[in-house]
Amino acid sequence: MEFELNKIPHLSEITAIHGAFNELAIPAKAHESLAERQRNSKKLLSSIEEAIKYVGLKDGMTISFHHHFRNGDYVINMVMDVIAKMGFKGLTLAASSLTDIHEPLIEHIKNGVIKHIETSGLRGKLAEAVSHGLMDFPIIFRSHGGRAAAIETGELHIDIAFLGAPSCDPYGNANGYNRDDENGSCCGSLGYAKLDAVKADKCVIITDHLVSFPNAPFGIPESHVDCVVKVESVGDPKGIMSGATRYTKNPKELLIAKTAADVIEASGYFNDGFSMQMGSGGASLATARFLREKMINKNIKARFALGGITGQIVEMHEEGLVQKILDVQSFDLVAANSLKNNRFHQQIDASYYASYVNRGAAVNQLDFVILSALEIDTDFNINVLTGSDGVIRGAIGGHPDTAAGASLSVVVAPLLRGRIPTIVGKVNTVVTPGCTVDVVVTDQGVAVNPRRPEIKERLEAAGIPVFTIDQLRARAERIVGVPEPIQYEDRVVGVVMYRDNSVIDVIRQVKEID
Amino acid sequence: MEFELNKIPHLSEITAIHGAFNELAIPAKAHESLAERQRNSKKLLSSIEEAIKYVGLKDGMTISFHHHFRNGDYVINMVMDVIAKMGFKGLTLAASSLTDIHEPLIEHIKNGVIKHIETSGLRGKLAEAVSHGLMDFPIIFRSHGGRAAAIETGELHIDIAFLGAPSCDPYGNANGYNRDDENGSCCGSLGYAKLDAVKADKCVIITDHLVSFPNAPFGIPESHVDCVVKVESVGDPKGIMSGATRYTKNPKELLIAKTAADVIEASGYFNDGFSMQMGSGGASLATARFLREKMINKNIKARFALGGITGQIVEMHEEGLVQKILDVQSFDLVAANSLKNNRFHQQIDASYYASYVNRGAAVNQLDFVILSALEIDTDFNINVLTGSDGVIRGAIGGHPDTAAGASLSVVVAPLLRGRIPTIVGKVNTVVTPGCTVDVVVTDQGVAVNPRRPEIKERLEAAGIPVFTIDQLRARAERIVGVPEPIQYEDRVVGVVMYRDNSVIDVIRQVKEID
Repeated sequence: MEFELNKIPHLSEITAIHGAFNELAIPAKAHESLAERQRNSKKLLSSIEEAIKYVGLKDGMTISFHHHFRNGDYVINMVMDVIAKMGFKGLTLAASSLTDIHEPLIEHIKNGVIKHIETSGLRGKLAEAVSHGLMDFPIIFRSHGGRAAAIETGELHIDIAFLGAPSCDPYGNANGYNRDDENGSCCGSLGYAKLDAVKADKCVIITDHLVSFPNAPFGIPESHVDCVVKVESVGDPKGIMSGATRYTKNPKELLIAKTAADVIEASGYFNDGFSMQMGSGGASLATARFLREKMINKNIKARFALGGITGQIVEMHEEGLVQKILDVQSFDLVAANSLKNNRFHQQIDASYYASYVNRGAAVNQLDFVILSALEIDTDFNINVLTGSDGVIRGAIGGHPDTAAGASLSVVVAPLLRGRIPTIVGKVNTVVTPGCTVDVVVTDQGVAVNPRRPEIKERLEAAGIPVFTIDQLRARAERIVGVPEPIQYEDRVVGVVMYRDNSVIDVIRQVKEID
Repeated sequence: MEFELNKIPHLSEITAIHGAFNELAIPAKAHESLAERQRNSKKLLSSIEEAIKYVGLKDGMTISFHHHFRNGDYVINMVMDVIAKMGFKGLTLAASSLTDIHEPLIEHIKNGVIKHIETSGLRGKLAEAVSHGLMDFPIIFRSHGGRAAAIETGELHIDIAFLGAPSCDPYGNANGYNRDDENGSCCGSLGYAKLDAVKADKCVIITDHLVSFPNAPFGIPESHVDCVVKVESVGDPKGIMSGATRYTKNPKELLIAKTAADVIEASGYFNDGFSMQMGSGGASLATARFLREKMINKNIKARFALGGITGQIVEMHEEGLVQKILDVQSFDLVAANSLKNNRFHQQIDASYYASYVNRGAAVNQLDFVILSALEIDTDFNINVLTGSDGVIRGAIGGHPDTAAGASLSVVVAPLLRGRIPTIVGKVNTVVTPGCTVDVVVTDQGVAVNPRRPEIKERLEAAGIPVFTIDQLRARAERIVGVPEPIQYEDRVVGVVMYRDNSVIDVIRQVKEID
């Protein structure tokens, strides 16, 4: 050739001039109809085993799962059983969270199928076994935003994502809510699965409801999906979600929620166009109920609600009190249906929600967040991961992400749980650092972080009595005394990562009581 | 430490134990309200110059733009003028397409600001100048799917994307249609911009309509946006799109469209649940009108329509004839408003639409596509890029992508344009290879690619006379004779890439006629 084409920027090789291209290199056109293409879709595999072979699982790989099916999830156990039967060993299981239903993983850990786990939380028998030294390597606990960031930076590389979906077409368009015309499993937003689909080397969709192409709108696009497997059931609808999240009737929780709403109202952040997130937990969710009344009375509206979304938020959206909803996880069927039907109720992914390494996460635009706690210490550090006996029984979730992002983080908890004080000298496990926690609301008084003197002033001006955190601790201890310190072994069973991928604490093996 | 934490998989460094984290490393919490955060958004920069400095443009970098503003676009010229004034040189401009309004780029090329161009198309004075040897390096022409694939494989690395948006909030959530409550520029889908935002090292949104956070639903999420600049106007609304795409009244085009619809009906692909795409061009768009009548008469519905979307398709969607719309580009205001309001009208990105390197593109699910042509040769190769004088005056668009993906590709064109035959022995420029073209429909007869004998049989069985492509060529030449061959220089001014990133043809400099 007379012209040095390979000196053109971005062009490394010339293969043809004027149509003298290699026709054999052009993939053959399909001649089937759309219906035939879907029926014969090469992406649609007949079993989980076939999918595992197709995507090339190998010993030692990292596989991921989402937790949108909560305690109704069948997917993780189903996939792990097949993997174990096929004889794979030494895998890292990186789930967005794990819960009681995942107890069967204990056997896979004992048998060496699973070598290592990453998760946001752990509960039930599996959590107990881990706390008593089940695993050779400590579990890594990450917040939802921290997990997204770890995936984005490559710190957590996912080889294969196995993602359950309540609906999917044979070409891989998956969704959590679009059930076309029948009933079945439904989880609403696939927010925690979306990023896995983008970043995993291979992505397998597991569904119990195959719909016709295109399953649009989609939560996960076909362009990120390697194959699809239809199974009998991806989960127990009752365990996945309830029809509508119920208001708590617990008088102590209602008192806390009412006080939290009073705190918000007086805080300086309860203005027209505010933004909010309600964490999970009875008192936290109930706060929205009291805020709603205040919004109507003061004639103010929220610009947006973020995070895990309940029917309560949807109701406020539909009556015009909340303009937009950014939904990373739908907590009930009302929320899931709203995501499907309300155009200003938008599905977002975990990175958009809370990652610190992208170019801007939604948590950074929160006026306030209401969060729960298992323990709060006098430095305002929060524990949502280990119980008073030192055993793992919780989940980090978006706790540290929203506390850091919101201008006002309000942590709600009863002062005592039975004979156990919530406010202590030092939490068992630091999950959310005290420097990001602004107000603590209990049923027996409110404390404000000394870093926020202006908030204390505003609450007092509104007639809300404010105590020091030490006063609240003293009050708890006067009633139930100082608990005996937990006996630990030296061995580390869990590592708690802060959202910026630094270690913020470790969890040690609990001592066996003879 | 007694435990070798750095032997934990995925954990390279331990920085803290039990809350002894480095508090200074935790970013300071903001205390502002949402309104204040938006007003003070650090992402919101005051000028294009400031944005260019912020994202760190350097000589020789690759910058990208989208073509959703069509011939109303102000963004490319506006940004290039600032870049030129700031003294940058040797840039590669990678636009999804360019058109008449971009004539001012000629000066920037002459002055060395732009060294190289990648685009889907080129028209007007700029195209003429390029065809006459304006540039030192040939322009690289890519199809929409080919460009997406080149971005995904890294063959086209974008340093900085400058993306115009009809609405954006101060944190970067951008959209083509969400105008909240006022009138202004509007382009509907941002399909060709979405992938640039994901893959570019830096992403600048340029908008003339700043809305309050969160601008949800969004086409481009804040998490991919580095900064936002508000300008007076991103484009001329009249040039961006019309109210509704008008039906052609040209009798020759209507005849071609009617014949094309007859061909579709007889082809074997016109069954309940079919899928389709209409390319741009009068006859191509008009075909939908005739198909609509046939759908009503035969009582069949389309499962989905793909690609550039017009009001005509929206009308069929709203009357229940087209179930779902996958929209990579909205051709008129009716389409843009439908994207905003109809939940089964979904915005898709260029990769989802047509890339060959992802895990499945929508073009692969097309039953048929109707496409235009400037030239068709007796090998069924198609030219949509250069005129009969050899000068560049078109755009590849999704032509080769859809022809390859669809089970039936129908190319519509008049047999003659004035004294110029459309069917020739050899096209000036091969854009779409003949092996992916199935039927040619002209106003003076239909030809079927010999690779598809079954289609020929079906058309003849339905009473549609089928000619050979040589017969059609002979008919054209009987009327207007054989055109004189175009005189070219040796010098290559354009390289045409097939969708799989191989070179399919080159465009040479046209000879000056003395």
